[in-house]
Amino acid sequence: MSKEIQKEEGELEYHDILLDLIKGQSKKKKDALMKILYGGECIPIELSEKATDLSTEHDFEIKAFNLPTAYEEELRKPRKVRIGAIQNSIAVSTTESVEKQRNALWAKIEKLLIAAGEMGTNIICLQEAWTMPFAFCTREKKKWMEFAEPIDGPTTKFLSKIAKKYQMVILSPILERDIKRQGQIWNTVVVIDADGEVLGFQRKTHIPRVGDFNESTYYMEGNTPHTVFETKYAKVGINICYGRHFPENWAGYGLKGAEIVFNPSATVGLLSEPLWGVEARNAAIANGYFTVAINRVGTEVFPNEFTSGNGLPSHKDFGHFYGSSFLTAPNGLRTPSLSRVRDSLLVAEVDLNQIRQVRDKWCFPMTRRLPDYAKLFNEASQLDWEPEIISKSNPQKKKK
Amino acid sequence: MSKEIQKEEGELEYHDILLDLIKGQSKKKKDALMKILYGGECIPIELSEKATDLSTEHDFEIKAFNLPTAYEEELRKPRKVRIGAIQNSIAVSTTESVEKQRNALWAKIEKLLIAAGEMGTNIICLQEAWTMPFAFCTREKKKWMEFAEPIDGPTTKFLSKIAKKYQMVILSPILERDIKRQGQIWNTVVVIDADGEVLGFQRKTHIPRVGDFNESTYYMEGNTPHTVFETKYAKVGINICYGRHFPENWAGYGLKGAEIVFNPSATVGLLSEPLWGVEARNAAIANGYFTVAINRVGTEVFPNEFTSGNGLPSHKDFGHFYGSSFLTAPNGLRTPSLSRVRDSLLVAEVDLNQIRQVRDKWCFPMTRRLPDYAKLFNEASQLDWEPEIISKSNPQKKKK
Repeated sequence: MSKEIQKEEGELEYHDILLDLIKGQSKKKKDALMKILYGGECIPIELSEKATDLSTEHDFEIKAFNLPTAYEEELRKPRKVRIGAIQNSIAVSTTESVEKQRNALWAKIEKLLIAAGEMGTNIICLQEAWTMPFAFCTREKKKWMEFAEPIDGPTTKFLSKIAKKYQMVILSPILERDIKRQGQIWNTVVVIDADGEVLGFQRKTHIPRVGDFNESTYYMEGNTPHTVFETKYAKVGINICYGRHFPENWAGYGLKGAEIVFNPSATVGLLSEPLWGVEARNAAIANGYFTVAINRVGTEVFPNEFTSGNGLPSHKDFGHFYGSSFLTAPNGLRTPSLSRVRDSLLVAEVDLNQIRQVRDKWCFPMTRRLPDYAKLFNEASQLDWEPEIISKSNPQKKKK
Repeated sequence: MSKEIQKEEGELEYHDILLDLIKGQSKKKKDALMKILYGGECIPIELSEKATDLSTEHDFEIKAFNLPTAYEEELRKPRKVRIGAIQNSIAVSTTESVEKQRNALWAKIEKLLIAAGEMGTNIICLQEAWTMPFAFCTREKKKWMEFAEPIDGPTTKFLSKIAKKYQMVILSPILERDIKRQGQIWNTVVVIDADGEVLGFQRKTHIPRVGDFNESTYYMEGNTPHTVFETKYAKVGINICYGRHFPENWAGYGLKGAEIVFNPSATVGLLSEPLWGVEARNAAIANGYFTVAINRVGTEVFPNEFTSGNGLPSHKDFGHFYGSSFLTAPNGLRTPSLSRVRDSLLVAEVDLNQIRQVRDKWCFPMTRRLPDYAKLFNEASQLDWEPEIISKSNPQKKKK
């Protein structure tokens, strides 16, 4: 493992350092800084004894919060839901066999899922391609393609039992082998309902071609844009990784009725860390739903060297996946980040009634101009489009 | 003036307090915190002597930065532009005559514009409805409607001279009286090119109906959606105030070629402060252009009491306009905020070449799926639209 990169990027819990700095201030200043940076303060909730024991024994972090920002209504009862997210490093070296690597990840994630179940989590999402290292930086096919499996493959069977036992919806991002279509590969999230049955799947719709993210070498843009699933507890959507950069994509899930949109990701510090706290949070605000951004942790080192399209010498690691998963409510209130380096479980209790309350307050659904956007986006998609620009030689047509 | 509200919300420079906390850390921690919170550090640039003298004499703040994040190219020369923004409180009591109030604002803004000109600013934008108090909280028409003026009215004439003298593009948000259309009112930005000529105008396209922002009592949704103007120095768009909540609206300016999008605003702490640092910044990232969010400062107190639609007793003030104007580059790097309470001038030197460089890196224009968004937005705009939701009773059609 490149110790230098690990040290430079991964070592420090910058989010905790920031929160500590703020907490040292007077109440007035602390409240104001928390409001500006996080939209206010989430209330920590007590961990169950079993969850605590598991976290100690298996060395993972649990952060659990209540977001008490919905008000009581007369006609609707509160719709309290506990939303979970898991971030983790790989479990053994990438030089180990495919089976050993996958089994080790299963064993690790099982503990985190049990802790989530014991905490009463209703809906939980794992990180992108959680059964494998994020090997797409290598551009190699041998070995890594063996991690791919069908939607009803062994990983889904493994998770179904846990889902059923804890009555917990599990969103499981895998590398999918599409048996019916000549075995082609997709980047897919399997939606397992609280009864352990597969409700459906979402394929990654926006595929990066940036730096080490050579994913289009492996799979194309998915064919299930912004699908919304009515699970036992809430209507959910899954916007996989790179899709978080596209506000119009986030909007699609909102239009179709999603109450919570998960963003299972794999992204590294030097590329995206300044954007991480902005994008999923903005989506929650703009669309009036809950968002959960999830990123893996750790530095993954591969057997063979590769280059990164930046003119620098070849190397064997992917840089640091910085974790920092978090949840945002429709009013912009967000939880603190999970660790930048540790396996972690986030549990956030929310009241889904807040969605309609925030939309009623701001009126974004009625004040947005959807037909205008549709018209412009359609025009801009045509080959013969000529965007009009007002200039000295093209004066504004609608004169004053 | 309600001293309590002023004290609670307005008094403290929370952004400076935060930066001071960060600057007290070791270099390693400081760099990391700046990266996570601001996308890195902007380099302060020296103020001209005349600008400094003006700021001292007339009690305003100047913050000037260089954002040196574009790299040198072989075929294109750098396109350095100095972008400016002005935020201010009203100049005299709202009980004064219309003429006195407007003249006092002209006199105040003249000093700030001269300072901007002396700093070599190329394009500058003033705050929303800058010639008047933001009186729309009152729902009264008498007196306040007299602030409205045509696009080529006295304020434009006043600014044209300054624009010409300093070869500085000025974007001037006014309350517009549309003489040709029965004198109806719009919320409009007049675009004055560097030669002092009016290049065109942008009318506010998204109108709030929230809390004290009773603006639809005065004017309707504008009829010039995302117009882009080729000024002497850059192609600019203006997304007025509430329009910043709509990512699809920001996208329109980008599609049509804007390089810088200004967001002249008037918004108060209790309503929007947690969202302020997120929305315009996300727009810069998603669209790969520069954004400048501008908010007025101070607490405006009106002659007659009014209520705010929140069940609380009637009062005479609008809460605190929290300033905090800032600029964001296409890579997410943002300047520190201007003051929360003081009249201020922001000057930021950028290289417009960065726009294409960031777009080439991330490839958002090519990886977004515009025709898909157009199709969905169009479908969702139809009366007979039935959004499909996958559930037990409506299984996913495209089977695994």
